[in-house]
Amino acid sequence: MGTSNKKRAGIIGGAGYTGGETIRLLLNHPDVELAFVHSRSNVGNPLYAVHSDLLGETDLQFTGEVLEDVDVIFLCLGHGESVKFLENNDIPAAVRIIDLSQDFRLGESVKGRTFVYGLPEWHRDDIKKASNIANPGCFATGIQLGLLPLAKAGLLNEVHTTGITGSTGAGQSLQSTSHFTWRANNISTYKVLTHQHLKEIRRTLQALQPAYSGALNFVPVRGDFPRGIWVTSYLDCALSLEEAYDLYTKYYEGHPFTHVSLKQIDLKQVVNTNKCIIQLEKVDGKLVIHTIEDNLIKGASGQAVQNMNLILGLEETAGLKLKSIVF
Amino acid sequence: MGTSNKKRAGIIGGAGYTGGETIRLLLNHPDVELAFVHSRSNVGNPLYAVHSDLLGETDLQFTGEVLEDVDVIFLCLGHGESVKFLENNDIPAAVRIIDLSQDFRLGESVKGRTFVYGLPEWHRDDIKKASNIANPGCFATGIQLGLLPLAKAGLLNEVHTTGITGSTGAGQSLQSTSHFTWRANNISTYKVLTHQHLKEIRRTLQALQPAYSGALNFVPVRGDFPRGIWVTSYLDCALSLEEAYDLYTKYYEGHPFTHVSLKQIDLKQVVNTNKCIIQLEKVDGKLVIHTIEDNLIKGASGQAVQNMNLILGLEETAGLKLKSIVF
Amino acid sequence: MGTSNKKRAGIIGGAGYTGGETIRLLLNHPDVELAFVHSRSNVGNPLYAVHSDLLGETDLQFTGEVLEDVDVIFLCLGHGESVKFLENNDIPAAVRIIDLSQDFRLGESVKGRTFVYGLPEWHRDDIKKASNIANPGCFATGIQLGLLPLAKAGLLNEVHTTGITGSTGAGQSLQSTSHFTWRANNISTYKVLTHQHLKEIRRTLQALQPAYSGALNFVPVRGDFPRGIWVTSYLDCALSLEEAYDLYTKYYEGHPFTHVSLKQIDLKQVVNTNKCIIQLEKVDGKLVIHTIEDNLIKGASGQAVQNMNLILGLEETAGLKLKSIVF
Amino acid sequence: MGTSNKKRAGIIGGAGYTGGETIRLLLNHPDVELAFVHSRSNVGNPLYAVHSDLLGETDLQFTGEVLEDVDVIFLCLGHGESVKFLENNDIPAAVRIIDLSQDFRLGESVKGRTFVYGLPEWHRDDIKKASNIANPGCFATGIQLGLLPLAKAGLLNEVHTTGITGSTGAGQSLQSTSHFTWRANNISTYKVLTHQHLKEIRRTLQALQPAYSGALNFVPVRGDFPRGIWVTSYLDCALSLEEAYDLYTKYYEGHPFTHVSLKQIDLKQVVNTNKCIIQLEKVDGKLVIHTIEDNLIKGASGQAVQNMNLILGLEETAGLKLKSIVF
Repeated sequence: MGTSNKKRAGIIGGAGYTGGETIRLLLNHPDVELAFVHSRSNVGNPLYAVHSDLLGETDLQFTGEVLEDVDVIFLCLGHGESVKFLENNDIPAAVRIIDLSQDFRLGESVKGRTFVYGLPEWHRDDIKKASNIANPGCFATGIQLGLLPLAKAGLLNEVHTTGITGSTGAGQSLQSTSHFTWRANNISTYKVLTHQHLKEIRRTLQALQPAYSGALNFVPVRGDFPRGIWVTSYLDCALSLEEAYDLYTKYYEGHPFTHVSLKQIDLKQVVNTNKCIIQLEKVDGKLVIHTIEDNLIKGASGQAVQNMNLILGLEETAGLKLKSIVF
Repeated sequence: MGTSNKKRAGIIGGAGYTGGETIRLLLNHPDVELAFVHSRSNVGNPLYAVHSDLLGETDLQFTGEVLEDVDVIFLCLGHGESVKFLENNDIPAAVRIIDLSQDFRLGESVKGRTFVYGLPEWHRDDIKKASNIANPGCFATGIQLGLLPLAKAGLLNEVHTTGITGSTGAGQSLQSTSHFTWRANNISTYKVLTHQHLKEIRRTLQALQPAYSGALNFVPVRGDFPRGIWVTSYLDCALSLEEAYDLYTKYYEGHPFTHVSLKQIDLKQVVNTNKCIIQLEKVDGKLVIHTIEDNLIKGASGQAVQNMNLILGLEETAGLKLKSIVF
Repeated sequence: MGTSNKKRAGIIGGAGYTGGETIRLLLNHPDVELAFVHSRSNVGNPLYAVHSDLLGETDLQFTGEVLEDVDVIFLCLGHGESVKFLENNDIPAAVRIIDLSQDFRLGESVKGRTFVYGLPEWHRDDIKKASNIANPGCFATGIQLGLLPLAKAGLLNEVHTTGITGSTGAGQSLQSTSHFTWRANNISTYKVLTHQHLKEIRRTLQALQPAYSGALNFVPVRGDFPRGIWVTSYLDCALSLEEAYDLYTKYYEGHPFTHVSLKQIDLKQVVNTNKCIIQLEKVDGKLVIHTIEDNLIKGASGQAVQNMNLILGLEETAGLKLKSIVF
Repeated sequence: MGTSNKKRAGIIGGAGYTGGETIRLLLNHPDVELAFVHSRSNVGNPLYAVHSDLLGETDLQFTGEVLEDVDVIFLCLGHGESVKFLENNDIPAAVRIIDLSQDFRLGESVKGRTFVYGLPEWHRDDIKKASNIANPGCFATGIQLGLLPLAKAGLLNEVHTTGITGSTGAGQSLQSTSHFTWRANNISTYKVLTHQHLKEIRRTLQALQPAYSGALNFVPVRGDFPRGIWVTSYLDCALSLEEAYDLYTKYYEGHPFTHVSLKQIDLKQVVNTNKCIIQLEKVDGKLVIHTIEDNLIKGASGQAVQNMNLILGLEETAGLKLKSIVF
């Protein structure tokens, strides 16, 4: 396939973690060409000056301009920056937008652009027809993938969730809780029962189970590792383990990245991949659901590329057959 | 103070983690002399042949005999081994036993020896009068210290708890989940909602709040660090944060190792010490209680020495003013 | 390209670390089909029963038979096991062998099979014509790539080298030095100045610089991370930094995985890739050469696949455009 | 012993890592009272507001004043700040100064104050008579302790040294190389062959072996752990291993913190203690010397307290019998 047949993609905010991961995925994408990477603070520098692992992969440089002859633009900006960017720049209507911030996840719009929530395992067909995607949050992805089948079956009630995230979830800014000396071998929590992702989670779950009004109790934990999210949820459930397993495997049939297991799982099964693995347990009257994902891939840039594949009519897994780090 | 005035202590099972920590604490104890360290597999070896950090600290050797002219013996054996040891050895009745296994935590006795559950923050006066101590489990210590004040006030109902433990909690045996390559940067769970410590926890809580019958939902997590336990519990609670803080500080007044904080805590505040720090948060109608401890010290050997101090009439903090690792 | 046009590969010893990595690489290889994975202890089990990250990637099972209708077989066995395997099994002469053990790195042969040392950056053309490959050791790869240009230029003299390896270098067997509790936050050395890879290194260097007889002083260090090797070598050298950089960049021109940098490098630039990055420094009369690689990929399975590509006439980089873990 | 008989100590710069460690050591020191802790940016805050592990240990607050009725003042300031402090403050001549910066390690003086280099294993008797101490650098301590016996015997020649340091060696400022996401599982080097500690090392060694002019080649490595320094040095040496062991054990006889081993050592044997353990190996004509220390204790605050003990006539080990972290 010649370059001329490839789709063209651009990235706004290419110097951060999610920008870097999106670059890495697109550089190896078989059907998409990386047309430009925008970064105000790095104009003219080669990408590998910021993302040093790209040495030898590409000679592309950061640009200060936004090219318009592209099929899709990824916004890898901080929360609040995406809406400003779209207000201040006139992107042709034909250019699809995939926004990785939280600016449009709750139904917000800008200049007539409306956004579809980009969780393919919920409503892939809507995504295929969308022009603009609000990519889900990392914790939100892991928690929702653990609950979607129950919501669709109308079985949700009060949910108790713990999520443990790697340090990349907090971005690359220097802060006391990202200092190696502090974080190594350490554990702490933050935004207990008040995490901002609860809103987008509840919105999805209520779309599937409108009567759902139970509490979503979520304890977010800072883990002492760089990548990955572990989520454990449990709730009262009358299903047997076999029935639950059946419900989950049927729900995720045909979804190439989400897999269900009855065996003990561990986080490193999915680190550096776009996969989510779900493990089910039943203890007395409670169903326990564990989910694992890489927060930067299935929880951010990988899911963004998955959404791009869907809206551009490409193979859903294109560019996303990634080698796990595993060790 | 001359050596002749010191109390004398022996250790059975001195080659494992809790045995080693008990040795380290007793070597620096101002009022206690380490009389012998028993280990069947290491007779005649210097202690530092097994515990290599003790090079330069002591020339003591492991023995195969149990000396009887001691004031106290610590049993640092595997679960099930303590009861066998006491069945097979005639320890003089005057020698106090502090057992670190789970063999006697639920009221079991052997040869007429009955055991007091060694949680000083629950019933220190009973411990002072005891001859034999069943030292609490590591998770059990952290979870109970977070709930004791509520139980005493009769405020417990269904509790939701997550606990994250360092790898030392699993002992020094080689197993796939203790392989560095596997455990580094990894997260997993085990015994979800079924952990064996739930029994001793419930026993204590019901002693304080007899009508308590709510569920204790506990998700144990394997963390990727060697030392420490983080516990977060939450439950419905009508107290305001100020009232809860008041309840907790009053409860722990006079207890030298347990402190209450309204500021964010993190695990490394207590690693390598005998302290437990408790942080309280109130979110809507829920009280959130975080507790941190070193699983090998306050969760095992340090609490054992604290109990020894109490039953021998020594200062409760003697030998336990430990420098935190902090970083 | 249809499956029928793909080359076919088999793996002997598929349950270990290098076997697992070879599986992962071949499953995503565009031009090669994974025909069978042999493991005596896992016959009939799906690959993901051992390599749990492969859940959802393949339903292939371990076999107890060695298929003969393949183009190439990878031997991912322990040292000493490869020669036994080839003695005990009649592999058709047309089937290429790529051996990852150290059994054939010094010119050994078996049943008339002779082996070419598989370091493409040394003698790629010999590899292209080879039937059997002795894949280099992990430390040996990193050290040699740092010294090849000097050897070719006849500039080697006494070399001082430190190498720090991740825990995967020691394999998956359980041993005290691979226990998480011991290895986390720890450093130690082993086989100081006597490491077995020194032989294959010297053999290569003397092939390029026959008069080279200087000492190769190598201090191997166990690092507290799972993946990667860092090597620093220095030696007396009259070249300026510019001349050295010129020498190295010219030497590695056309080698797709090895890159030269004058900027500070760090290990994670190459983890989970087949790349080797070399950084040069000049301090007074000494040239300092740092090299980084993933010990399991460029140091083992990735280089094995690179060698396979070369002997089968495929693109050298096929199946090896891997996303770095980077964080 | 009543408080009135205790010596009194003050700390300038109490909010950093070495300040914090000095506080921790002095709070538990049997013969010294912590009179004040000065920190310009934290006046009026309790110590535990900065050093959160001190919650429950002390209610002392940071001061903005320098008390003069003390026996000793520790300067825990950045390099260049100590000389400024002493220029700008009139400290009574009777107050001893122990400076942890590098400002006075090479013989510098200020306002008539001259400083003795505080390495007790070199010249303890000089330290006992000193009024002001320049506390050695962390790498300098580890490297020198590995070479002192050879220097005294006149056996030094060209030395090849690698040192691996924990992240605390770089202090608490936020910088890209101290970001958890970057440093976890990573290795890098810095100041290769040019580290600033080489000057103080050479000065000591030449005091013992005046004719010593060989190169000191030192490769400093950033390790991915918070605490500790590992040093390996090797050099040509005609001594047998037994002779070298004899030389080292005799040299360190009577030095309570430095121990010599013929067994493999590992870093965690000394973390969180004031000890240095030295391991010797002999390979062909080369003597290999490994040394381990905690960079913040024997490499900084612990050695400072050891020096204080010596100049104040206290027991050398007072307040320094520390429990190792070991795991």
